[in-house]
Amino acid sequence: MNMRVVTSVQEMQQHALSLKRAGRKIALVPTMGYLHEGHLSLVALARARADVVVLSLFVNPIQFLPGEDLASYPRDFERDRALCERAGVDFVFHPDPGEMYAAEHSVFVEETSLSNVLCGACRPGHFRGVTSVVAKLFNIILPDIAVFGQKDAQQCRIIQRMVRDLNFPVEIVVGSIVREPDGLAKSSRNKYLSPQDRQHALCLRRSLDIAEIMVREGERSVEVIRESVKAVIAAVPGAVIDYVALVDNETLAPVVLIQRPVLVALAVRIGGTRLIDNTVLG
Amino acid sequence: MNMRVVTSVQEMQQHALSLKRAGRKIALVPTMGYLHEGHLSLVALARARADVVVLSLFVNPIQFLPGEDLASYPRDFERDRALCERAGVDFVFHPDPGEMYAAEHSVFVEETSLSNVLCGACRPGHFRGVTSVVAKLFNIILPDIAVFGQKDAQQCRIIQRMVRDLNFPVEIVVGSIVREPDGLAKSSRNKYLSPQDRQHALCLRRSLDIAEIMVREGERSVEVIRESVKAVIAAVPGAVIDYVALVDNETLAPVVLIQRPVLVALAVRIGGTRLIDNTVLG
Repeated sequence: MNMRVVTSVQEMQQHALSLKRAGRKIALVPTMGYLHEGHLSLVALARARADVVVLSLFVNPIQFLPGEDLASYPRDFERDRALCERAGVDFVFHPDPGEMYAAEHSVFVEETSLSNVLCGACRPGHFRGVTSVVAKLFNIILPDIAVFGQKDAQQCRIIQRMVRDLNFPVEIVVGSIVREPDGLAKSSRNKYLSPQDRQHALCLRRSLDIAEIMVREGERSVEVIRESVKAVIAAVPGAVIDYVALVDNETLAPVVLIQRPVLVALAVRIGGTRLIDNTVLG
Repeated sequence: MNMRVVTSVQEMQQHALSLKRAGRKIALVPTMGYLHEGHLSLVALARARADVVVLSLFVNPIQFLPGEDLASYPRDFERDRALCERAGVDFVFHPDPGEMYAAEHSVFVEETSLSNVLCGACRPGHFRGVTSVVAKLFNIILPDIAVFGQKDAQQCRIIQRMVRDLNFPVEIVVGSIVREPDGLAKSSRNKYLSPQDRQHALCLRRSLDIAEIMVREGERSVEVIRESVKAVIAAVPGAVIDYVALVDNETLAPVVLIQRPVLVALAVRIGGTRLIDNTVLG
Protein backbone atom coordinates (compact mmCIF):
# COMPACT_ATOMS: atom_id res chain seq x y z
CA MET A 1 0.00 0.00 0.00
CA ASN A 2 1.32 3.46 -0.85
CA MET A 3 1.58 5.82 2.08
CA ARG A 4 -1.28 8.30 2.31
CA VAL A 5 -1.21 11.77 3.83
CA VAL A 6 -4.58 12.67 5.33
CA THR A 7 -5.37 16.18 6.56
CA SER A 8 -9.12 15.83 7.20
CA VAL A 9 -10.43 14.49 10.51
CA GLN A 10 -13.50 13.03 8.87
CA GLU A 11 -11.52 11.29 6.13
CA MET A 12 -9.08 9.83 8.66
CA GLN A 13 -11.92 8.57 10.83
CA GLN A 14 -13.63 6.99 7.82
CA HIS A 15 -10.41 5.18 6.89
CA ALA A 16 -10.08 3.98 10.48
CA LEU A 17 -13.68 2.75 10.66
CA SER A 18 -13.26 0.83 7.39
CA LEU A 19 -10.00 -0.73 8.56
CA LYS A 20 -11.59 -1.78 11.87
CA ARG A 21 -14.56 -3.30 10.07
CA ALA A 22 -12.12 -5.22 7.90
CA GLY A 23 -10.53 -6.60 11.05
CA ARG A 24 -7.20 -4.80 10.59
CA LYS A 25 -5.13 -3.98 13.65
CA ILE A 26 -4.21 -0.29 13.79
CA ALA A 27 -1.17 1.18 15.58
CA LEU A 28 -0.84 4.91 16.24
CA VAL A 29 2.42 6.80 16.74
CA PRO A 30 1.51 10.33 17.86
CA THR A 31 4.21 12.95 17.10
CA MET A 32 4.70 16.67 16.69
CA GLY A 33 6.88 16.00 13.64
CA TYR A 34 10.50 16.99 12.98
CA LEU A 35 11.13 13.29 13.26
CA HIS A 36 14.33 11.73 14.58
CA GLU A 37 15.52 8.18 15.30
CA GLY A 38 13.51 8.21 18.54
CA HIS A 39 10.27 8.57 16.60
CA LEU A 40 11.39 6.02 14.01
CA SER A 41 12.08 3.46 16.76
CA LEU A 42 8.43 3.91 17.82
CA VAL A 43 7.30 3.37 14.23
CA ALA A 44 9.31 0.12 14.18
CA LEU A 45 7.53 -1.04 17.37
CA ALA A 46 4.19 -0.15 15.78
CA ARG A 47 5.09 -1.86 12.49
CA ALA A 48 5.96 -5.09 14.32
CA ARG A 49 2.67 -5.17 16.24
CA ALA A 50 -0.06 -4.06 13.84
CA ASP A 51 -1.36 -4.34 10.28
CA VAL A 52 -1.68 -0.61 9.72
CA VAL A 53 0.61 2.11 11.09
CA VAL A 54 -0.71 5.65 11.42
CA LEU A 55 1.73 8.39 12.38
CA SER A 56 0.08 11.61 13.48
CA LEU A 57 2.05 14.75 12.87
CA PHE A 58 0.51 17.69 14.65
CA VAL A 59 2.11 20.51 16.63
CA ASN A 60 -0.66 20.69 19.19
CA PRO A 61 -1.21 24.33 20.15
CA ILE A 62 -3.08 23.64 23.39
CA GLN A 63 -0.15 21.83 25.03
CA PHE A 64 2.07 24.92 24.70
CA LEU A 65 1.84 27.62 27.35
CA PRO A 66 1.85 31.32 26.49
CA GLY A 67 5.48 32.30 25.91
CA GLU A 68 6.58 28.79 24.99
CA ASP A 69 8.00 27.78 21.60
CA LEU A 70 4.79 27.02 19.68
CA ALA A 71 5.60 29.40 16.81
CA SER A 72 9.27 28.42 16.55
CA TYR A 73 8.83 24.67 17.12
CA PRO A 74 10.82 23.09 14.27
CA ARG A 75 8.81 21.85 11.29
CA ASP A 76 9.92 20.11 8.08
CA PHE A 77 7.00 18.27 6.58
CA GLU A 78 8.69 17.09 3.36
CA ARG A 79 11.56 15.53 5.30
CA ASP A 80 9.10 13.92 7.76
CA ARG A 81 7.03 12.53 4.92
CA ALA A 82 10.08 10.91 3.30
CA LEU A 83 11.17 9.41 6.63
CA CYS A 84 7.69 7.99 7.20
CA GLU A 85 7.56 6.46 3.75
CA ARG A 86 10.92 4.80 4.26
CA ALA A 87 9.87 3.54 7.71
CA GLY A 88 6.77 1.80 6.37
CA VAL A 89 4.11 4.15 7.73
CA ASP A 90 0.73 3.60 6.05
CA PHE A 91 -1.02 6.86 6.95
CA VAL A 92 0.39 10.21 7.98
CA PHE A 93 -2.37 12.16 9.72
CA HIS A 94 -1.42 15.82 9.41
CA PRO A 95 -4.34 18.13 10.21
CA ASP A 96 -4.33 21.91 10.55
CA PRO A 97 -4.98 23.36 14.02
CA GLY A 98 -8.30 24.69 12.70
CA GLU A 99 -9.28 21.18 11.62
CA MET A 100 -8.61 19.82 15.11
CA TYR A 101 -10.06 22.66 17.20
CA ALA A 102 -13.33 24.44 16.46
CA ALA A 103 -13.36 28.14 17.30
CA GLU A 104 -15.39 27.57 20.46
CA HIS A 105 -13.76 24.27 21.43
CA SER A 106 -14.77 23.68 25.05
CA VAL A 107 -14.19 20.02 25.98
CA PHE A 108 -10.96 18.83 27.54
CA VAL A 109 -9.63 15.66 29.14
CA GLU A 110 -7.90 16.37 32.41
CA GLU A 111 -5.73 14.15 34.60
CA THR A 112 -5.82 15.60 38.11
CA SER A 113 -3.14 13.74 40.06
CA LEU A 114 -0.03 12.65 38.13
CA SER A 115 -0.18 15.91 36.16
CA ASN A 116 0.55 18.14 39.14
CA VAL A 117 4.21 17.19 39.59
CA LEU A 118 7.43 17.38 37.53
CA CYS A 119 6.74 18.97 34.11
CA GLY A 120 3.10 19.54 35.12
CA ALA A 121 4.20 21.79 37.99
CA CYS A 122 6.50 23.79 35.67
CA ARG A 123 4.04 23.88 32.75
CA PRO A 124 0.50 24.21 34.16
CA GLY A 125 -2.07 23.19 31.54
CA HIS A 126 0.50 21.34 29.40
CA PHE A 127 -0.77 17.85 30.21
CA ARG A 128 -4.40 18.88 29.79
CA GLY A 129 -3.42 19.77 26.23
CA VAL A 130 -1.69 16.42 25.82
CA THR A 131 -4.50 14.25 27.20
CA SER A 132 -7.09 16.18 25.20
CA VAL A 133 -5.29 15.81 21.88
CA VAL A 134 -4.46 12.15 22.50
CA ALA A 135 -8.12 11.42 23.32
CA LYS A 136 -9.06 13.11 20.04
CA LEU A 137 -6.45 11.11 18.12
CA PHE A 138 -7.71 7.88 19.70
CA ASN A 139 -11.25 8.68 18.58
CA ILE A 140 -10.21 9.70 15.08
CA ILE A 141 -7.71 6.90 14.39
CA LEU A 142 -9.28 4.14 16.55
CA PRO A 143 -5.96 2.42 17.25
CA ASP A 144 -5.64 -0.98 18.90
CA ILE A 145 -2.15 0.06 20.00
CA ALA A 146 -0.54 3.45 20.59
CA VAL A 147 3.22 3.84 20.94
CA PHE A 148 4.81 6.54 23.10
CA GLY A 149 8.45 7.23 23.98
CA GLN A 150 9.87 6.74 27.48
CA LYS A 151 11.72 10.05 27.09
CA ASP A 152 8.39 11.67 28.00
CA ALA A 153 8.05 9.39 31.02
CA GLN A 154 5.43 11.47 32.81
CA GLN A 155 3.38 11.73 29.63
CA CYS A 156 3.48 7.92 29.31
CA ARG A 157 2.21 7.44 32.87
CA ILE A 158 -0.56 10.02 32.36
CA ILE A 159 -1.69 8.47 29.08
CA GLN A 160 -1.72 5.01 30.69
CA ARG A 161 -3.87 6.46 33.49
CA MET A 162 -6.19 8.08 30.94
CA VAL A 163 -6.61 4.78 29.10
CA ARG A 164 -7.41 3.03 32.37
CA ASP A 165 -9.75 5.67 33.79
CA LEU A 166 -11.66 6.42 30.57
CA ASN A 167 -11.56 2.77 29.37
CA PHE A 168 -10.10 3.48 25.93
CA PRO A 169 -9.81 0.12 24.11
CA VAL A 170 -6.16 0.89 23.33
CA GLU A 171 -2.96 -0.85 24.45
CA ILE A 172 -0.13 1.55 25.29
CA VAL A 173 3.37 0.49 24.24
CA VAL A 174 6.34 2.47 25.57
CA GLY A 175 9.53 2.62 23.51
CA SER A 176 12.98 3.10 25.10
CA ILE A 177 14.86 6.38 24.93
CA VAL A 178 17.05 6.68 21.83
CA ARG A 179 20.31 8.58 22.36
CA GLU A 180 23.08 10.16 20.33
CA PRO A 181 26.39 8.24 20.48
CA ASP A 182 27.58 10.60 23.23
CA GLY A 183 24.48 9.98 25.35
CA LEU A 184 22.26 13.00 24.65
CA ALA A 185 18.64 11.90 24.35
CA LYS A 186 17.25 12.53 20.86
CA SER A 187 14.83 15.44 20.79
CA SER A 188 13.42 17.76 18.16
CA ARG A 189 14.44 20.60 20.47
CA ASN A 190 18.15 19.63 20.32
CA LYS A 191 18.13 21.70 17.14
CA TYR A 192 17.98 24.82 19.34
CA LEU A 193 21.38 24.06 20.95
CA SER A 194 24.53 25.98 19.98
CA PRO A 195 27.68 23.83 19.69
CA GLN A 196 28.65 24.87 23.21
CA ASP A 197 25.14 24.20 24.59
CA ARG A 198 25.27 20.83 22.85
CA GLN A 199 28.40 19.95 24.85
CA HIS A 200 26.91 21.27 28.10
CA ALA A 201 23.73 19.28 27.50
CA LEU A 202 25.63 16.06 28.13
CA CYS A 203 25.31 16.79 31.86
CA LEU A 204 21.74 15.41 31.82
CA ARG A 205 22.77 11.89 30.85
CA ARG A 206 25.95 12.17 32.98
CA SER A 207 23.90 13.01 36.07
CA LEU A 208 21.65 9.99 35.44
CA ASP A 209 24.77 7.81 35.09
CA ILE A 210 25.85 8.95 38.55
CA ALA A 211 22.45 7.97 39.97
CA GLU A 212 22.65 4.52 38.39
CA ILE A 213 26.20 4.00 39.69
CA MET A 214 25.22 5.03 43.22
CA VAL A 215 22.33 2.54 43.27
CA ARG A 216 24.61 -0.18 41.92
CA GLU A 217 27.00 0.60 44.78
CA GLY A 218 24.18 0.13 47.30
CA GLU A 219 22.92 3.65 47.96
CA ARG A 220 19.17 3.65 48.75
CA SER A 221 18.56 7.20 49.98
CA VAL A 222 16.68 9.27 47.43
CA GLU A 223 17.87 12.48 49.09
CA VAL A 224 21.55 11.50 48.82
CA ILE A 225 21.17 10.50 45.16
CA ARG A 226 19.23 13.64 44.28
CA GLU A 227 21.92 15.89 45.74
CA SER A 228 24.59 14.13 43.67
CA VAL A 229 22.54 14.43 40.50
CA LYS A 230 21.97 18.12 41.14
CA ALA A 231 25.67 18.68 41.84
CA VAL A 232 26.66 17.17 38.48
CA ILE A 233 24.30 19.52 36.65
CA ALA A 234 25.08 22.57 38.77
CA ALA A 235 28.78 22.18 37.89
CA VAL A 236 28.00 23.01 34.24
CA PRO A 237 27.99 26.71 33.35
CA GLY A 238 24.65 27.90 32.01
CA ALA A 239 22.72 24.80 33.16
CA VAL A 240 19.62 25.81 35.11
CA ILE A 241 17.66 23.07 36.86
CA ASP A 242 13.85 23.14 36.44
CA TYR A 243 13.59 20.03 38.58
CA VAL A 244 15.43 16.88 39.59
CA ALA A 245 12.85 14.42 40.87
CA LEU A 246 13.02 10.86 42.16
CA VAL A 247 9.49 9.47 42.33
CA ASP A 248 7.62 6.18 42.26
CA ASN A 249 7.83 4.97 38.66
CA GLU A 250 4.10 4.24 38.47
CA THR A 251 2.33 6.74 40.71
CA LEU A 252 4.94 9.56 40.46
CA ALA A 253 4.53 9.96 44.25
CA PRO A 254 7.51 11.10 46.34
CA VAL A 255 9.74 8.34 47.72
CA VAL A 256 12.37 8.33 50.46
CA LEU A 257 14.11 5.00 49.87
CA ILE A 258 14.62 3.04 46.67
CA GLN A 259 12.62 -0.13 47.28
CA ARG A 260 10.44 -0.31 44.18
CA PRO A 261 11.31 1.09 40.73
CA VAL A 262 12.04 4.81 41.03
CA LEU A 263 11.92 7.25 38.13
CA VAL A 264 14.70 9.85 38.09
CA ALA A 265 13.36 12.66 35.94
CA LEU A 266 15.20 15.84 35.00
CA ALA A 267 14.27 19.07 33.31
CA VAL A 268 17.21 21.40 32.73
CA ARG A 269 17.54 24.61 30.76
CA ILE A 270 20.74 24.78 28.71
CA GLY A 271 21.30 28.19 27.18
CA GLY A 272 17.54 28.78 27.24
CA THR A 273 16.55 25.41 25.75
CA ARG A 274 14.53 23.20 28.09
CA LEU A 275 15.66 19.58 27.88
CA ILE A 276 14.30 16.54 29.71
CA ASP A 277 15.74 13.11 30.36
CA ASN A 278 15.12 10.23 32.75
CA THR A 279 16.06 6.75 33.87
CA VAL A 280 14.43 4.13 36.06
CA LEU A 281 16.36 2.89 39.13
CA GLY A 282 15.85 -0.38 41.02
CA MET B 1 -30.87 -13.35 21.14
CA ASN B 2 -31.64 -13.57 24.84
CA MET B 3 -30.94 -10.43 26.79
CA ARG B 4 -27.68 -10.49 28.71
CA VAL B 5 -26.84 -8.61 31.89
CA VAL B 6 -23.14 -7.71 32.00
CA THR B 7 -21.52 -6.27 35.13
CA SER B 8 -17.85 -6.39 34.07
CA VAL B 9 -16.29 -3.54 32.09
CA GLN B 10 -13.87 -5.88 30.38
CA GLU B 11 -16.57 -8.37 29.38
CA MET B 12 -18.79 -5.58 28.01
CA GLN B 13 -15.90 -4.13 26.00
CA GLN B 14 -15.06 -7.58 24.60
CA HIS B 15 -18.68 -8.07 23.50
CA ALA B 16 -18.62 -4.64 21.89
CA LEU B 17 -15.34 -5.27 20.05
CA SER B 18 -16.66 -8.59 18.71
CA LEU B 19 -19.90 -6.98 17.57
CA LYS B 20 -18.01 -4.17 15.82
CA ARG B 21 -15.72 -6.65 14.08
CA ALA B 22 -18.82 -8.52 12.93
CA GLY B 23 -20.09 -5.27 11.40
CA ARG B 24 -23.05 -4.92 13.77
CA LYS B 25 -24.40 -1.44 14.50
CA ILE B 26 -24.57 -0.74 18.24
CA ALA B 27 -26.92 1.74 19.94
CA LEU B 28 -26.43 2.83 23.54
CA VAL B 29 -29.14 4.13 25.85
CA PRO B 30 -27.41 5.45 29.00
CA THR B 31 -29.64 5.50 32.10
CA MET B 32 -29.47 5.57 35.88
CA GLY B 33 -32.21 2.93 36.03
CA TYR B 34 -35.66 3.10 37.67
CA LEU B 35 -36.91 3.08 34.13
CA HIS B 36 -40.08 4.80 32.95
CA GLU B 37 -41.79 5.36 29.60
CA GLY B 38 -39.31 8.15 28.84
CA HIS B 39 -36.42 5.68 28.90
CA LEU B 40 -38.43 3.10 26.97
CA SER B 41 -39.12 5.63 24.21
CA LEU B 42 -35.32 6.02 23.89
CA VAL B 43 -34.94 2.24 23.67
CA ALA B 44 -37.51 2.23 20.84
CA LEU B 45 -35.48 4.88 18.97
CA ALA B 46 -32.33 2.81 19.49
CA ARG B 47 -34.07 -0.41 18.44
CA ALA B 48 -35.23 1.19 15.17
CA ARG B 49 -31.74 2.43 14.28
CA ALA B 50 -29.28 -0.31 15.24
CA ASP B 51 -28.67 -4.06 15.25
CA VAL B 52 -27.75 -4.27 18.90
CA VAL B 53 -29.21 -2.21 21.76
CA VAL B 54 -27.20 -1.76 24.95
CA LEU B 55 -28.89 -0.07 27.90
CA SER B 56 -26.50 1.01 30.62
CA LEU B 57 -27.94 1.14 34.09
CA PHE B 58 -25.57 2.90 36.46
CA VAL B 59 -26.27 5.42 39.20
CA ASN B 60 -23.12 7.43 38.56
CA PRO B 61 -21.74 8.65 41.89
CA ILE B 62 -19.51 11.39 40.46
CA GLN B 63 -22.43 13.34 38.97
CA PHE B 64 -24.07 13.77 42.38
CA LEU B 65 -22.87 16.59 44.62
CA PRO B 66 -22.34 16.14 48.36
CA GLY B 67 -25.77 16.38 50.00
CA GLU B 68 -27.65 15.32 46.87
CA ASP B 69 -29.76 12.16 46.60
CA LEU B 70 -27.11 9.60 45.57
CA ALA B 71 -27.92 7.21 48.45
CA SER B 72 -31.69 7.54 48.13
CA TYR B 73 -31.89 7.63 44.31
CA PRO B 74 -34.60 5.04 43.49
CA ARG B 75 -33.36 1.63 42.37
CA ASP B 76 -35.29 -1.48 41.30
CA PHE B 77 -33.08 -3.71 39.22
CA GLU B 78 -35.47 -6.62 38.80
CA ARG B 79 -38.22 -4.37 37.49
CA ASP B 80 -35.75 -2.61 35.16
CA ARG B 81 -34.48 -5.93 33.86
CA ALA B 82 -38.00 -7.10 33.01
CA LEU B 83 -38.80 -3.81 31.26
CA CYS B 84 -35.59 -4.05 29.22
CA GLU B 85 -36.33 -7.62 28.20
CA ARG B 86 -39.83 -6.66 27.06
CA ALA B 87 -38.46 -3.62 25.16
CA GLY B 88 -36.03 -5.71 23.13
CA VAL B 89 -32.78 -4.62 24.80
CA ASP B 90 -29.88 -6.96 23.93
CA PHE B 91 -27.43 -6.07 26.69
CA VAL B 92 -28.00 -4.43 30.06
CA PHE B 93 -24.67 -3.05 31.27
CA HIS B 94 -24.94 -2.79 35.04
CA PRO B 95 -21.54 -2.29 36.69
CA ASP B 96 -20.77 -1.56 40.34
CA PRO B 97 -19.30 1.85 41.18
CA GLY B 98 -16.05 0.09 42.10
CA GLU B 99 -15.95 -1.54 38.66
CA MET B 100 -16.27 1.85 36.97
CA TYR B 101 -13.99 3.92 39.21
CA ALA B 102 -10.61 2.77 40.50
CA ALA B 103 -9.75 3.99 44.00
CA GLU B 104 -7.37 6.64 42.66
CA HIS B 105 -9.41 7.53 39.56
CA SER B 106 -7.93 10.81 38.32
CA VAL B 107 -9.03 11.44 34.71
CA PHE B 108 -12.12 13.44 33.87
CA VAL B 109 -13.74 14.92 30.79
CA GLU B 110 -14.75 18.51 31.31
CA GLU B 111 -16.89 20.82 29.21
CA THR B 112 -15.95 24.38 30.10
CA SER B 113 -18.57 26.60 28.47
CA LEU B 114 -22.10 25.18 28.19
CA SER B 115 -21.67 23.59 31.64
CA ASN B 116 -21.45 26.86 33.51
CA VAL B 117 -25.10 27.90 33.14
CA LEU B 118 -28.53 26.51 34.13
CA CYS B 119 -28.13 23.22 36.04
CA GLY B 120 -24.34 23.57 35.85
CA ALA B 121 -24.49 26.81 37.84
CA CYS B 122 -26.73 25.20 40.50
CA ARG B 123 -24.81 21.89 40.59
CA PRO B 124 -21.07 22.64 40.12
CA GLY B 125 -19.23 19.49 39.05
CA HIS B 126 -22.41 17.70 37.97
CA PHE B 127 -21.71 17.87 34.25
CA ARG B 128 -18.08 16.88 34.70
CA GLY B 129 -19.45 13.69 36.22
CA VAL B 130 -21.84 13.27 33.30
CA THR B 131 -19.29 13.84 30.52
CA SER B 132 -16.75 11.61 32.25
CA VAL B 133 -19.12 8.68 32.65
CA VAL B 134 -20.51 9.04 29.13
CA ALA B 135 -16.97 9.07 27.70
CA LYS B 136 -16.29 5.87 29.64
CA LEU B 137 -19.52 4.28 28.39
CA PHE B 138 -18.65 5.24 24.81
CA ASN B 139 -15.25 3.56 25.15
CA ILE B 140 -16.65 0.45 26.82
CA ILE B 141 -19.72 -0.06 24.59
CA LEU B 142 -18.35 1.46 21.33
CA PRO B 143 -21.79 2.59 20.12
CA ASP B 144 -22.45 3.90 16.62
CA ILE B 145 -25.45 5.74 18.07
CA ALA B 146 -26.28 6.98 21.55
CA VAL B 147 -29.78 8.08 22.53
CA PHE B 148 -30.45 10.77 25.13
CA GLY B 149 -33.68 12.39 26.29
CA GLN B 150 -34.58 16.01 25.56
CA LYS B 151 -35.81 16.34 29.15
CA ASP B 152 -32.12 16.77 30.04
CA ALA B 153 -31.74 19.42 27.34
CA GLN B 154 -28.50 20.90 28.69
CA GLN B 155 -26.99 17.43 29.03
CA CYS B 156 -27.87 16.74 25.38
CA ARG B 157 -26.13 19.92 24.21
CA ILE B 158 -23.05 19.17 26.34
CA ILE B 159 -22.80 15.59 25.09
CA GLN B 160 -23.15 16.79 21.50
CA ARG B 161 -20.35 19.28 22.16
CA MET B 162 -18.20 16.52 23.69
CA VAL B 163 -18.73 14.29 20.67
CA ARG B 164 -17.74 17.15 18.37
CA ASP B 165 -14.73 18.37 20.35
CA LEU B 166 -13.28 14.95 21.23
CA ASN B 167 -14.26 13.41 17.85
CA PHE B 168 -16.12 10.41 19.26
CA PRO B 169 -17.35 8.33 16.29
CA VAL B 170 -20.86 8.33 17.74
CA GLU B 171 -24.09 9.83 16.43
CA ILE B 172 -26.24 11.45 19.12
CA VAL B 173 -30.01 10.97 18.82
CA VAL B 174 -32.29 13.04 21.06
CA GLY B 175 -35.70 11.64 22.02
CA SER B 176 -38.66 13.88 22.85
CA ILE B 177 -39.91 14.43 26.40
CA VAL B 178 -42.48 11.84 27.48
CA ARG B 179 -45.19 13.18 29.81
CA GLU B 180 -47.90 11.89 32.10
CA PRO B 181 -51.46 12.45 30.77
CA ASP B 182 -51.70 15.62 32.91
CA GLY B 183 -48.47 17.03 31.46
CA LEU B 184 -45.87 16.25 34.14
CA ALA B 185 -42.62 15.16 32.50
CA LYS B 186 -41.73 11.55 33.36
CA SER B 187 -38.83 11.35 35.81
CA SER B 188 -37.46 8.75 38.20
CA ARG B 189 -37.53 11.50 40.83
CA ASN B 190 -41.34 11.94 40.53
CA LYS B 191 -41.44 9.04 42.98
CA TYR B 192 -40.34 11.51 45.70
CA LEU B 193 -43.51 13.63 45.30
CA SER B 194 -46.35 13.48 47.84
CA PRO B 195 -49.88 13.56 46.34
CA GLN B 196 -50.03 17.30 47.03
CA ASP B 197 -46.53 17.91 45.56
CA ARG B 198 -47.58 15.87 42.55
CA GLN B 199 -50.45 18.33 41.95
CA HIS B 200 -48.22 21.37 42.53
CA ALA B 201 -45.62 19.98 40.12
CA LEU B 202 -47.97 20.61 37.21
CA CYS B 203 -46.91 24.27 37.37
CA LEU B 204 -43.72 23.40 35.41
CA ARG B 205 -45.55 22.29 32.28
CA ARG B 206 -48.22 24.98 32.80
CA SER B 207 -45.56 27.71 32.83
CA LEU B 208 -44.05 26.35 29.59
CA ASP B 209 -47.55 26.35 28.04
CA ILE B 210 -47.81 30.06 28.85
CA ALA B 211 -44.48 30.72 27.12
CA GLU B 212 -45.60 28.84 24.01
CA ILE B 213 -48.90 30.71 23.93
CA MET B 214 -47.17 34.09 24.27
CA VAL B 215 -44.87 33.33 21.35
CA ARG B 216 -47.80 32.14 19.27
CA GLU B 217 -49.47 35.46 20.05
CA GLY B 218 -46.42 37.33 18.76
CA GLU B 219 -44.42 38.12 21.88
CA ARG B 220 -40.65 38.18 21.15
CA SER B 221 -39.19 39.65 24.34
CA VAL B 222 -37.41 37.05 26.40
CA GLU B 223 -37.68 39.24 29.50
CA VAL B 224 -41.46 39.54 29.20
CA ILE B 225 -41.89 35.80 28.67
CA ARG B 226 -39.55 34.91 31.52
CA GLU B 227 -41.49 37.08 33.97
CA SER B 228 -44.75 35.38 32.99
CA VAL B 229 -43.23 31.92 33.37
CA LYS B 230 -41.87 32.84 36.80
CA ALA B 231 -45.22 34.27 37.87
CA VAL B 232 -47.03 31.01 37.03
CA ILE B 233 -44.61 29.04 39.17
CA ALA B 234 -44.43 31.58 42.00
CA ALA B 235 -48.22 31.39 42.37
CA VAL B 236 -47.93 27.76 43.55
CA PRO B 237 -47.36 27.30 47.30
CA GLY B 238 -44.11 25.48 48.07
CA ALA B 239 -42.65 25.89 44.59
CA VAL B 240 -39.11 27.33 44.76
CA ILE B 241 -37.46 28.39 41.51
CA ASP B 242 -33.83 27.27 41.00
CA TYR B 243 -33.81 28.96 37.61
CA VAL B 244 -36.03 29.96 34.71
CA ALA B 245 -33.79 30.47 31.68
CA LEU B 246 -34.42 31.37 28.06
CA VAL B 247 -31.25 30.73 26.09
CA ASP B 248 -30.07 29.97 22.58
CA ASN B 249 -31.08 26.36 21.93
CA GLU B 250 -27.66 25.40 20.62
CA THR B 251 -25.08 27.51 22.46
CA LEU B 252 -27.12 28.07 25.67
CA ALA B 253 -26.03 31.72 25.48
CA PRO B 254 -28.36 34.45 26.80
CA VAL B 255 -30.80 35.93 24.30
CA VAL B 256 -32.90 39.08 24.35
CA LEU B 257 -35.30 38.48 21.47
CA ILE B 258 -36.72 35.25 20.09
CA GLN B 259 -35.28 35.13 16.57
CA ARG B 260 -33.71 31.68 16.44
CA PRO B 261 -34.87 28.62 18.45
CA VAL B 262 -34.82 29.45 22.15
CA LEU B 263 -34.73 26.85 24.92
CA VAL B 264 -36.92 27.61 27.92
CA ALA B 265 -35.44 25.55 30.75
CA LEU B 266 -36.77 25.33 34.29
CA ALA B 267 -35.53 23.85 37.52
CA VAL B 268 -38.04 24.09 40.37
CA ARG B 269 -38.09 22.57 43.83
CA ILE B 270 -41.48 21.19 44.82
CA GLY B 271 -41.63 20.17 48.48
CA GLY B 272 -37.86 19.57 48.42
CA THR B 273 -37.80 17.57 45.16
CA ARG B 274 -35.89 19.25 42.34
CA LEU B 275 -37.70 18.87 39.01
CA ILE B 276 -36.66 20.06 35.56
CA ASP B 277 -38.58 20.62 32.36
CA ASN B 278 -38.13 22.53 29.11
CA THR B 279 -39.52 23.43 25.72
CA VAL B 280 -38.10 24.98 22.58
CA LEU B 281 -39.70 28.20 21.28
CA GLY B 282 -39.48 29.60 17.75
